[in-house]
Amino acid sequence: MDLSRAAAAALDDADPLATFRSRFPGAEDDGPDRLLYLDGNSLGRMPAATPGALARVVEQQWAEGLVGSWASWIGEAARIGDLLATGVLGAAEGEVLVGDSTSVNLYKLLRAGVDARPGRDVLVCTADDFPTDRYIVAGVAQARGLTVREVPADIDAGLDPAVLVAALDERVAVVVLSHVAYRSGARADLAAITRLVHDAGALVLWDLSHAAGSVPVELAAAGADLAVGCTYKYLNGGPGAPAFLYVRRDLQEQLRSPIQGWFGQRNQFAMGPVYDPAPGIERFGVGTPPVLAMAAVEVGAALIAEAGVARLAEKGRALTDLAVALADAWPADSGVVLASPRDGGRRGSHVTFAHPQAWQLTQALIDRGVVPDYRTPDRVRLGLAPLYTRFVDVWDAMDRFRALLADGSFAAYPAEAARVT
Amino acid sequence: MDLSRAAAAALDDADPLATFRSRFPGAEDDGPDRLLYLDGNSLGRMPAATPGALARVVEQQWAEGLVGSWASWIGEAARIGDLLATGVLGAAEGEVLVGDSTSVNLYKLLRAGVDARPGRDVLVCTADDFPTDRYIVAGVAQARGLTVREVPADIDAGLDPAVLVAALDERVAVVVLSHVAYRSGARADLAAITRLVHDAGALVLWDLSHAAGSVPVELAAAGADLAVGCTYKYLNGGPGAPAFLYVRRDLQEQLRSPIQGWFGQRNQFAMGPVYDPAPGIERFGVGTPPVLAMAAVEVGAALIAEAGVARLAEKGRALTDLAVALADAWPADSGVVLASPRDGGRRGSHVTFAHPQAWQLTQALIDRGVVPDYRTPDRVRLGLAPLYTRFVDVWDAMDRFRALLADGSFAAYPAEAARVT
Repeated sequence: MDLSRAAAAALDDADPLATFRSRFPGAEDDGPDRLLYLDGNSLGRMPAATPGALARVVEQQWAEGLVGSWASWIGEAARIGDLLATGVLGAAEGEVLVGDSTSVNLYKLLRAGVDARPGRDVLVCTADDFPTDRYIVAGVAQARGLTVREVPADIDAGLDPAVLVAALDERVAVVVLSHVAYRSGARADLAAITRLVHDAGALVLWDLSHAAGSVPVELAAAGADLAVGCTYKYLNGGPGAPAFLYVRRDLQEQLRSPIQGWFGQRNQFAMGPVYDPAPGIERFGVGTPPVLAMAAVEVGAALIAEAGVARLAEKGRALTDLAVALADAWPADSGVVLASPRDGGRRGSHVTFAHPQAWQLTQALIDRGVVPDYRTPDRVRLGLAPLYTRFVDVWDAMDRFRALLADGSFAAYPAEAARVT
Repeated sequence: MDLSRAAAAALDDADPLATFRSRFPGAEDDGPDRLLYLDGNSLGRMPAATPGALARVVEQQWAEGLVGSWASWIGEAARIGDLLATGVLGAAEGEVLVGDSTSVNLYKLLRAGVDARPGRDVLVCTADDFPTDRYIVAGVAQARGLTVREVPADIDAGLDPAVLVAALDERVAVVVLSHVAYRSGARADLAAITRLVHDAGALVLWDLSHAAGSVPVELAAAGADLAVGCTYKYLNGGPGAPAFLYVRRDLQEQLRSPIQGWFGQRNQFAMGPVYDPAPGIERFGVGTPPVLAMAAVEVGAALIAEAGVARLAEKGRALTDLAVALADAWPADSGVVLASPRDGGRRGSHVTFAHPQAWQLTQALIDRGVVPDYRTPDRVRLGLAPLYTRFVDVWDAMDRFRALLADGSFAAYPAEAARVT
């Protein structure tokens, strides 16, 4: 691989997604001191179309249309869900609903899944799942008197299917896994693992937060049962944007949300006395969806669908490959070690490096205009959102990273304090 | 009472809240054919300050500040909660949190309350609570093997404390009630009923959706245990705006959210392996809060706090008194019957009339530029949001209502179809 900046620029020239950069204010800066934002997997950039979409919802639909605008708002949780299903998640219309947070959605589907597997008393997750996933699993297990089998997962290489199989038996009700690991970016084989879980008669619930918009998620092809995910990372839906949930069509009538809200009620505005779950995916709704925030989700999801997940994944792999190759070329005593799968086919669109002073490195990088993310215990995580990140952005960021390691100035930064991200 | 339009105009001239009307685009229209929006208790009007607040969050904090803006966003669920607590709900700082929907918050607090009353196996609600409240109560009861005692409540007059007392005994864990009834506007005595529930050793969980911003809610003075409520009605937070929850300070450490999300975790970004609830109100957080929507909640809550709940309640009572007096003066054969408490001290800021063709009347009123809300089975509900509704607006709306009843044209409208509101 030619590791020159000119070679990176040539990759940009040949990038079929290059024009999407102009759809994100700030991403077009070409200056040598520009901000290199490599945290689009924590908070994706704002699409240029978002302020206008919000203004339409706020200043026209809300301010002028007032309560009458519910005629268009009422179906949008399912409508934007359809866009995600068909454009991003490899699912069918009527299988995805937008609303609530990833955590709340995980809770709903996990409890519903447990109820659908009566007599089974074990939940399986991995020891390296994202914290909120493990906390939710633990809470449901405690409330329902279930046991949690926490499968060891290599925090760099991800889950080994052989290790998972050893935890699967006829006691397992639901297995909760991440498609792309939040720390290392390791990508699990959605179809193969779904098959293993089904072989044990259990349901699988995928967290797609780091996968949606970065890798092809083929829910239908995999026969996946349940999934949740967030929309503020690669989907660029905005800070804390409403999340999504997926329930395979043929499972929907068998499952019941534990939170019986009026937005999951059949014929909601009849306001009948008894809860009767709506047919289809809308039964997993709860309260009134946050309309303003949904408008921003729609803009971001539409952009990803327009770009196409296959092309995004291909570029994401090339971007992360470049970052890995550049780091490989650093002096052996740089102290930086790859903490993601080396095989680009086994990664999402972020790549992570370990370093004993990762916290200080992260702060120093931010001061040099490179925004990565620190992750415990000693990781610097680079999210290379393919929709608006160029190869020269990766090249320049890695060059600043290299220079920082070489001059050692990061060591003067204070050790970790309370951090917000 | 002088029922002339001139008398109504004189009340407007003397209204200390009159200037707030200019803070809501569309509410200032003075023309004879203007829209008379009497549904601010379903969806409050958009404050003029909201688009600017959203633009700051979206175009500055998100687009420019990117992930670094979490330094300011991270505490806002509690910060806006403090604003609601001290400015609107008669509670203390650290007792209110903004986020999730009313339904999800009700679920969380109800389950937490049940866990805090071990050995008690009954939930109490009223037969006329808002549907989502009853559905949530039923779902929790079913999941936990509890019995629901549904206390009869007069759908016009509201809950009779003597009837409630008959349902209270040592088996009752939690009582779920609305402070202001969604249909009739009947206002329950928060302090007296809280005392009755406490006498039985149970916890009370108040739904404040139709009360917050319309009547003085004195949670601390009443010693209320738990409460939830929405922010898109009198608080003008926007369609589907994030809701709030309240837990009395001394109860917080005894309660645990059933949905153990990372925004309820102590030292969240340490991302520790085991869920350990945060101290204080933040333990009732779950997922990442919807930052865009929260900005709109803050604008609305600040306006209500600035106007002052006591003044709002006083004006709301006068507005509803005027509507009742005007209807009383209609011919005896108008077919319209008051379906709210006649005593203004026992109402919130909306008033409801029964009519056998309420659905058709509602549609016809909308066509004449009056926006009320239809409610089952035969009610026309008028929400008279005191922040931006004038006495002459009520007078003109009731005049169009009277004319419609007189000419009978509403009878030509089709009967109820699926309705969205």
